[in-house]
Formats: sequence, structure tokens, C-alpha cells
Amino acid sequence: PTVRLKSTFWKHYQELIAQEVLPYQWAVMSDETGVSMADDPGGNNEFGREKSHVLANLRIAAGLETGEHYGFPFQDTDLYKWIEAAAYIMRQREEPQLRRLVDSAIDLIAKAQCSDGYLDSFIQITAPTRRFARLRESHELYTMGHFIEAAVACHESTGYDKALNVAIRMADCIDRAFGPEDGKIHGSDGHPEIELALSRLYEVTGEQRYIDLARYLLDVRGQDPDFYDRQDKADGSKPFIPGMSQFPKSYYQAAEPIREQKHADGHAVRVGYLCTGLANVARLTGDAELADVARRLWDDIIRKRMYITGNVGSTRVGESFTYDYDLPNETMYGESCASVSMAFFARSMMNLQPAGLYGDIVEKELFNGALAGMSLDGKHFFYVNPLEADPQASAIDGNPDRHHVLCQRADWFGCACCPSNIARLIASVEDYIYTTKLSHNGDILTIYSSQFIANSASFEDGIAVDQRSDFPWNGHIEYSISVPAAATSVDFAIRIPQWSQSEASAVVSVDGSVIDATPGIDGFVHVSVASGATVHIECDVDMRVKLMEASTRVRHDIGKVAVMRGPIVFCAEEADNQGPLWLHRISVDSWAKMLETNKVDEHYDEDLLDGVEVISMPDQMRTLSSTEDDLYQPVSNDTDSETSFADSRLTLIPYYSWANRGRGRMQVWFDSNR
Amino acid sequence: PTVRLKSTFWKHYQELIAQEVLPYQWAVMSDETGVSMADDPGGNNEFGREKSHVLANLRIAAGLETGEHYGFPFQDTDLYKWIEAAAYIMRQREEPQLRRLVDSAIDLIAKAQCSDGYLDSFIQITAPTRRFARLRESHELYTMGHFIEAAVACHESTGYDKALNVAIRMADCIDRAFGPEDGKIHGSDGHPEIELALSRLYEVTGEQRYIDLARYLLDVRGQDPDFYDRQDKADGSKPFIPGMSQFPKSYYQAAEPIREQKHADGHAVRVGYLCTGLANVARLTGDAELADVARRLWDDIIRKRMYITGNVGSTRVGESFTYDYDLPNETMYGESCASVSMAFFARSMMNLQPAGLYGDIVEKELFNGALAGMSLDGKHFFYVNPLEADPQASAIDGNPDRHHVLCQRADWFGCACCPSNIARLIASVEDYIYTTKLSHNGDILTIYSSQFIANSASFEDGIAVDQRSDFPWNGHIEYSISVPAAATSVDFAIRIPQWSQSEASAVVSVDGSVIDATPGIDGFVHVSVASGATVHIECDVDMRVKLMEASTRVRHDIGKVAVMRGPIVFCAEEADNQGPLWLHRISVDSWAKMLETNKVDEHYDEDLLDGVEVISMPDQMRTLSSTEDDLYQPVSNDTDSETSFADSRLTLIPYYSWANRGRGRMQVWFDSNR
Ligand SMILES: [Zn+2]
Ligand SMILES: [Zn+2]
Repeated sequence: PTVRLKSTFWKHYQELIAQEVLPYQWAVMSDETGVSMADDPGGNNEFGREKSHVLANLRIAAGLETGEHYGFPFQDTDLYKWIEAAAYIMRQREEPQLRRLVDSAIDLIAKAQCSDGYLDSFIQITAPTRRFARLRESHELYTMGHFIEAAVACHESTGYDKALNVAIRMADCIDRAFGPEDGKIHGSDGHPEIELALSRLYEVTGEQRYIDLARYLLDVRGQDPDFYDRQDKADGSKPFIPGMSQFPKSYYQAAEPIREQKHADGHAVRVGYLCTGLANVARLTGDAELADVARRLWDDIIRKRMYITGNVGSTRVGESFTYDYDLPNETMYGESCASVSMAFFARSMMNLQPAGLYGDIVEKELFNGALAGMSLDGKHFFYVNPLEADPQASAIDGNPDRHHVLCQRADWFGCACCPSNIARLIASVEDYIYTTKLSHNGDILTIYSSQFIANSASFEDGIAVDQRSDFPWNGHIEYSISVPAAATSVDFAIRIPQWSQSEASAVVSVDGSVIDATPGIDGFVHVSVASGATVHIECDVDMRVKLMEASTRVRHDIGKVAVMRGPIVFCAEEADNQGPLWLHRISVDSWAKMLETNKVDEHYDEDLLDGVEVISMPDQMRTLSSTEDDLYQPVSNDTDSETSFADSRLTLIPYYSWANRGRGRMQVWFDSNR
Repeated sequence: PTVRLKSTFWKHYQELIAQEVLPYQWAVMSDETGVSMADDPGGNNEFGREKSHVLANLRIAAGLETGEHYGFPFQDTDLYKWIEAAAYIMRQREEPQLRRLVDSAIDLIAKAQCSDGYLDSFIQITAPTRRFARLRESHELYTMGHFIEAAVACHESTGYDKALNVAIRMADCIDRAFGPEDGKIHGSDGHPEIELALSRLYEVTGEQRYIDLARYLLDVRGQDPDFYDRQDKADGSKPFIPGMSQFPKSYYQAAEPIREQKHADGHAVRVGYLCTGLANVARLTGDAELADVARRLWDDIIRKRMYITGNVGSTRVGESFTYDYDLPNETMYGESCASVSMAFFARSMMNLQPAGLYGDIVEKELFNGALAGMSLDGKHFFYVNPLEADPQASAIDGNPDRHHVLCQRADWFGCACCPSNIARLIASVEDYIYTTKLSHNGDILTIYSSQFIANSASFEDGIAVDQRSDFPWNGHIEYSISVPAAATSVDFAIRIPQWSQSEASAVVSVDGSVIDATPGIDGFVHVSVASGATVHIECDVDMRVKLMEASTRVRHDIGKVAVMRGPIVFCAEEADNQGPLWLHRISVDSWAKMLETNKVDEHYDEDLLDGVEVISMPDQMRTLSSTEDDLYQPVSNDTDSETSFADSRLTLIPYYSWANRGRGRMQVWFDSNR
């Protein structure tokens, strides 16, 4: 479909991408603006953090300049993701200046590309004889894969195919080098990405070789346990990223063949990209076994390894998943890219087999985990997204175990994977709203509306959908669906969010008549729209403020509650609240009464944080001990527990909007009296 | 005084040291027994963890063997601390076999010593031209300091001075090399230790140069901010311990001159040793300013940076202190050596100016933090002592942020500082019981009894003290104090533990008459024993089971309680309790009633863990969520909080005795309903 955004919330964000984020990122990548970079949270500072040098690297590779490569081996990808974001933005708006920059970038990239289609400025500049020689750490397919994604986006959005031709030559180069045939490389990139990129390229070109190669690269992963070690040995020269060989094979999902993998282990972004590729290839090849693997890994993440905000990655060591239910809130990682990759994975799962739960996760990432990675000014970014943060711990002389958990977004990073990744997600938010199921002859059978993001959409056969709402602040959604007489009738399916199913289901009316809004097993309410009809649907979802609890298997959330309203997870910041945040305790038992008596105040404050819903609720606050008190003392037996607390209030803002008012403590999970 | 132990508890431990620990450690250091070593929790595996090689290193240095040095630069110190422990053990018992080993070791050490007194097998074997060239990391003074301590112990316990002569030649060597004079080195060892060793050597030799040198080495620390960097540059060759130069100067307490230091920052063991030296030098030189620094750092640790068990060191990174009230329970370090060093520091503070609070900390370390470092079989050791542990987190595929937190003691370590440190503390427990204050002419004015450790002690002038108890299991203590007619009257002071002061103070009777047991400002109850009299004192301290809470400034203990009885902190182990330990919640409000109605069961179980008090109390337990449940769900508004809990019981054992029954979860702090 062609989707035109109308959502105030998302139009504001896309405006920000167009007006601030992309120009800023271009300036950084061109080394035109000075930036102050944070320590690498993953612990790799050896590639420098003085400048980006992305465009310079490509100019050097293209022979337009002389100089040294600067930055990580995959530095090129910052630009590629930026191009992809720009391409999406240009779908919605004329941006002549942006188009000139994109054009110039693609020209440069085309110049830098080798005659055989290979392109990786790091290898070309520093180790031209070592192509594909150390795939564990070289990121060559990862890097070219990111360009292929960008090129597909350019093709789909702007229609010009200069980029696509570069991408096709890249893919052909990779196809000549990798594959089951003798003489080709029987291994895959240490960082999955190419699989999803090739599946996208296949979708726009129809070239069978690309999807075959994608499937091969999925299947070869983990087949030969010594592959990377043997490559390193054969290469003999110094590693590209010295620490990388110390990680276990599970770090790059190569401990087992993909079809045998049962757990989402290792580097979280790698898992997200791999699974996205997996779901795409399963769909495009009809490989049911691969689809099962994708579902199994999905379940593993969603049911056991994801934070309430959608963040994933429980440790900074290897930026990785750890083990089931291990979800520490303050030593965690939760990389912005990992959240972006989860949105990709969820969309691919939706495309594979539509189900509301995939929409739930897309929504969770869009309004929480992924969105939190960028400041409201569009010029500062989080790599790590904690659920609890303390400037004292983050400080140089704080606690090194939590030093990676910043309390203020950084200008940029030595490894700048996150900023442009967030940009391309926000810039393409239209692509997450609808999924269609087609009949054998290509007619639309079902339109799945997965996201409450206001828009007007034109589908094939003149089918039009208009979605209106003030979501996420208001839960009243209206749809007008028109099916021309020339088209067949359409099943229109509205996702009932998981958060609106627990007590009061959503209320849905069709042309004024309330219908049963109990979602089907797929999580959607289905409304049939006849040929030639226009149907008006109103849907009210449950926007009451909710206290959430985690599985009691999650040690770090035991006895704690978090606050959600609709899809949005809220948090408390020091800026709005008294004392150390951990002194606050939420009284769960009086919650129902507090709601009934309107003691929980919620209102939209258009002047705060670019406009957010603010929740203010009565709570209890412990007394802050004096520094003169003993560090440990007996609990007094006489006093009843309530005397230790004073009545207080807790003010909460959306998690995505934290850390926009200076450095301070932040907390998502709160002690409760339960 | 001459103190003969009678305490069942401590005699058992010293027997273990004599019969098991020292022979085992000798076998390891001789490479006569195979050991399985844990990963280095501080992250330094580069010095190998296949064998100890301590004695072999010294034989090579002595020219008796050829070969390479193996292990850390300070590997010699494992033997030196072992000799010190052996010397203490030989005070109480004939141990001919042990004496032969000690003799042979000292002979070997004397042979390995250079003609000018220098001794450091690492430097002698690997870098003989680089003496004192990289003091930041070389540990040369630290190493020789440990031998000096051992030699003083040999001198005091066995009376033979072969070791002392080696030590004196070492000290003279150091004195020739370091000092304020031109041409000497104006810097100090990166690892404080020599200061306390020299102060001990001064006490037995009376040689003024040694205490002057100790004070000089304290004062030169941190005076010249570039000292270590300049040394490294001048040396030019490769570092001895590569990672060490990356730590901030505060890691080795050299960020500021010692007299200006306000916080216990950096490597916790370094802080403990430095402060011990500081307190000793302050006492022996009458330097009031140094005494103030010692008190200031003491307060900083005790009031803000110590775990309830006496452990210190909140992070594995640099094995270090972090910041005030930052006391995470499961990512912490709590090195056994750091607890030992805190016992040293406390004793030195007691000697500087007697006060009960120093005895409190000695007791805390003896019965908790330090003691936990060794298994009941005497052959397994903790480097890291957490307050919460989970085998899943510690596993290779667990959470790397908590991988250093073992749930089972290791045979040995590549960096084996802890095992012999624990041994020397337990072996010298007699030295922590009494402190005397003398008149100007050397008569005993006051005998401070700081520890409830049963013993019979003979003081100067024939003064005799007999202390009887079944402490720590029973709080009834009896003293008989005899002062001969020829001696002047004595003030006998009994420390009233801080844990026995809060509600019910201790009950003290003198010759059958109850006296006011409110301790003086020094924390002691004073009883005058007249010349020629024998006085019988009975003291009953408060051994009721207590729920403890931390300052609400400690984020990680908020809403939690720990259980203590007397000086002992208790913990729960998976071996005795249902389900994940974090499901248990202690009902603080019903605690008084539970105590009154004898619902809290406590009894001594002689068959469990070599005999321990076991506490079993009613508690509440959350339901373990099903793995099929959603990871996050709304808290039900309908149910009252108690329906989420089932009645349960919590069984607790002394913290020091945990991890003697296989790998399992352990927890000290529990959720409460407060
Ligand atoms: Zn990233
Ligand atoms: Zn140690």
C-alpha cells in the first residue's frame, strides 16, 4: 500500500528526522561538526572516538583522497543506514537538499565499489588482499548487506535505481564468493545481516540466486565448528577486531546449525538480524522448518528474555543475551539497535503469518525501547537503554559495572551503529502498520491493521483505508474502509493489543453497531467490508493506567511494579520526584480505590518533553536515612510498617522521553507493598 | 600477653589450619597436588592457572634449579603468608613436621636472597636489571613486606631469628633504595603493604630507620602525580602486569598525598593494608595527623562502604571500592583478602586508641566476611564473597557480569592471595582478643577484652585472665581476672558489642552483683580489679535473632532485611529452602509476635556444617510463575496482597558456612513486607 502518515506523534518524529536528525548525522559523518563521543559501552575504544570519517573512508577507497581508514571495520554502514532513512523520508516529502546528499553519497559509493562489485572501505584501504579472509570479525557481508537494504529502500521510495545497480553488483560478487559449490567459501559473516538484505533484494529483483544465497548463508552458519578458527589461522595476519575471537561461538550464533538452535543466545543485534532474515527466507521459500526455528527463537526472546520496554540484551559483555529470566535493570545493555532489530523481526514474523503478538512487539519497540535511543532534539543518542540509571554509577569514579549505563545521550559513538538505525526505523514507520493476505490470484483477502498510527492508505484495486486517532495519548481509533465495486470484498482485521485484552477488552463498533470485540486466535478482530462498500469502524482500547508485574521467575523485578498506559511504559525521573527514586513505594492494594477516586492524575502536558502524558499518583516514601545513622541496624519491632513511610506522590513520564532534562536518576520498576 | 585458646569454635578452626589447610597449601605451592583453578575473578588469567610454582620459583632464584618464573609477579607471597600462618600455629602446638617445612622454606628463601638483601624471585629470574623500575605493578616492596611480616611472626612465636635476619637485610636493602635523600627513589609500591610490615619490624627490632622509612613511604605516596608514568617511560620495556597502568591513580591510593585522602577509593586490599600501616605508624610515631587520616578512612568504609558481613569492594573491576552506599549484592567483589585486611586495620585502630567499634569489625570479619573465604574442609577458597549468588549467573553461559561470583569454592587461584591470608588470620586469632593500655612506667592500666573468644591469658606482672564461653553460639561469657598483690590494680574492660546495645543492653555481674552495663563512650564496660584480688565477671549479651535493615541510602537493600544472631549474619541456601530464594518474603510486622510465640526456631545442630546454629522462621512465599505465563502482566486489582503468598518457612545458616553442600543459590538480604 501507499501509506501517508497523519499521526501527529509520528509526523513530528519524521519531521525531526528530516529537519534535524539526518542533517546532523550527515554533518557528523562528513566530519563537519565536532562531536563528543561516549566511551564505547561494549568496551572497544581502540578504533578511536574522535571523529566519524565515514565519508572520508569511502573517498579514500574511491581514490578521490589519500589517507588512512578510520574507525571500525563496519564504519561504512553508518552512511548506508542513513541513506536508507533518507530514502524513506523522501517517500513522504520533497527534500531536494536531502536528495542531493543521497545522490552524492550513492555516486561516491559507486565510485568506491570495486570493478567486481565488492565494496568495503576498511578492507580496500587497509587489507585489500584479505577479502573474506576473517569473516568472524570482518563484517564485510554485514557492511554490504546494509547497503543492499539502503538500495532497496531507494528503489522502492524514489524509484531511481543507481543504488540498486550497485547493490546487485555487490550481491553478485558475494554470490560468486559464497555458496555450496567447490571453490566457494562455505561460511558466513560473523555478524548476520546479509541474509535479510538478500531476501529484500530478492523481493525487488525476483532473482532466485539471491534468495538461494540467503538460505545458504543461513544454513551454513554453525555447520563447521572450526570455520572461523581455520580462517584466522590461514589468514595468519593480525585480527581486524582483536577481542572478537575470545567470544564463544554462540556470540555470533554459530555454535549450532541454525535449524537446531533453540535459544536466543549471544550478541542481541546479531540475533535480531539473523531472525529477521530467517523469517523472510522462510516466507519467501516456504521453508516450514525455518519458520519453526524463527517461531522458537521468537518465543524464547519474548517469553523469557525481553524487558518490559522491549529492550533486549542483559549484559554489556558481548552486548548479549544471557539466560532465561535474567533481566537485571541497572547492569543491562538493551542496545538501541537490538530494539530496532526486534521491530524488524516482528514485522517479518507478521509477514510470515499475521498475528497480533507481532504487532504488540512492534508497538512496544516503537513507543518504548527503540524510541528511547534518541533525544527529543534528534542529536543525541543512547547505545545502552537501562531500566534504572544513576549518574553516580555512570561516572568515571562510579561503579565500573554500570559505567556503560549513561544517564544522558551522547553526541555520537565510536561504534555509531545506533543513531542511523533509530533514524531508519522512525523514517519507515508507515511500513509497520498494514500487512495484507492475498488470494492465489493476487486479490487482497485480508488487510491486517497492526498499529494504531493514523494514516490514509491506498491499497491495490483502489481499496482505501483511513485511520484517525490521537494515539498513543488517546485510545479512540476510527477507520473508514472503502472497497470499490470493482474489487472483491475485504476482510479488515484490527489488532486488539495484548494490553487491552486482560480485563476490559476493546470496544469496537461497525457503522455504529457494537460488535463482539473478542479477538480471534490471531489477536485480530475481523470485519468484512463488502465490495463497493465503505465501512466506518470505531475502536476504543483500554487506556487506563495499569500497574504491571513481571513473572516471579524474574529475580530482579520481584515485588516490584511498573506503570503502563496503553503501549507506553512510564518511568520516574529525578527531575520530577523527591529524593532517591528507590525510596518510593507503590501501594498495590489501594490501586483500585485510587483509580476509582481519581487519585491517579493523568493528563497530557503539551509543554513538557514535546508533549507527553504525565501520570501522577499517590505513593509512599521511605525516610532517607541520615548519613550519621549506622549503616545497618535492627528493624524496630514496635512500629508497624506504615510508620516508616510518608505519604508522597510519584510523577511519571513516558520511558522514551527520559534523559532530556540533564543527568539524573531514572527508574522503571518500583517497590510495591506486595 | 600469652593467650591460650580454649574456644571450641576457634580451636576447631586452628586444628583445621594445622592439620588440613597448611599441609594442603604446601602441597599446592610445591606443585605436589593437582588443583583445578577458577578463572581469575579480577580478569587476569595471563599469568597462568595450571600450577602454583611458588617453591620452584624460589629454587630457581636461589640457583638450585633452572627454569622460568611462573605466575604473578608477587607469587612468592603465597609462601610468605603461609610461613606466617605456620608460625602462629606453632605458638599453640608442637608441630614438628610443620616446623621442618618452615625451616626448609626459610633456608630456601635465605639462599634466594641477593647479597644486598633484595629478594623477589620474579624480578631476579625475569628482569634482574629492572629492580624497582616499575613500582606501580612490580609488587617488590609488597612481596618483601609479606616476608617481613612472616619473619616477625616467626620471631615472636618460635623465637628463632633466621627469618628475622633475612627480613632485616630486606628492610635495609629497601632503606638504601628509598627515602627522601637525593639519589634514592622518591616513590612507593603500587600495592601498599611494606608500611605495615616495616612498622611491625620496628616493633620487634626498635630500629628507628624502619619506622622512619614506613612513614616516608606513606607520605611519598601520591605526592608526585607522574611518578609511575615516568618510571614506566624510563624503563621502556614491557610492563610486568599489562593492564595495571590503565587504572586510575586512586586504584593504588596515589591520587592524592595520604594526609589529604578523604575516601576509601580503589583496590580494597590495598586500602586495607595501607590503612593498617597508617594506623601503626600513627601510633608508633605519635603522628596525630596520620591518626586522623586513619580515622577518616575508617569512618568512610564502616559508615558507607561495607557490607553487613564485613566484606568490602563493590566491583570486580579493579577489585575496588566504588562510591558511598553503593553496595550491590550480586555483582560485588568482597575479596577474602579485603576482609582480612579490614581485621588488620581494625586491630591497628584498636591499638591506636581502644574503642569497641574496632572490636565490632574484627568480630564481624572473624565470624562472617573473612571466615566465609574458606570451606569447612580447609581445601577450597573463595576469592569473591557475594551476598547473593546464583549458579546460573556464574556459569560460563550465564551472565558475564556475575561470572566472577562463584557458588562453590575453588581449589586454588592463579592469583592465590586469599587462601594463605585467611589461614594467617585464623591462625592468629588470639592476637585479636586483648589490648592493653600501659602507664608511663609500663604497668598495665587497662586490659581491653575485645573479643568473646574463650581463652586463658597471662599478662605481665602475673596478671591472669580466664575467659569461658560457648560463643558464638551462646551469649553467656565468664571471666576470672587475677591481679597478684605485687601488681597494681587493673581496669578490666569488656567490649559490649554494638549488636547487644540497641534494645536490651548486655547484663554484667561482678562477683555476683549486677552492675550497670551501659558501655562507656569507648564501647567498653569497665571493672576495676584491685591488686591481689581475683574477680569473677559474668556477662550475658543479647543473642536474640534480629532482623536487620540497611540505611535507606543503600539502594540495593531497600525494603529488605537480613537476619543476625549475635555477631553472625545468616543466609539461606537452596539446599535448605524451597524454590528460588527470591520468592521468600519475611513479615517484619509479625516479627515481634513470632519471637514471643516461639515461632522462630533456633537450635544448634552439631551434625550440620561442622556444627552451626540453624534458624528456621515462618515466612511467606510468592507463587512461582509458570513458564507459560506472560513475562509481564497487569497486577490484579481485585485480590488483596496476601493472596499472592503462601505460608512457608525460611531456614537459615551462618553466612560463613555457605557453599559447603554443592552449588546452589544463596541469599543474605530478603524481601520484607516493609
Ligand atoms: Zn547499535
Ligand atoms: Zn585475595
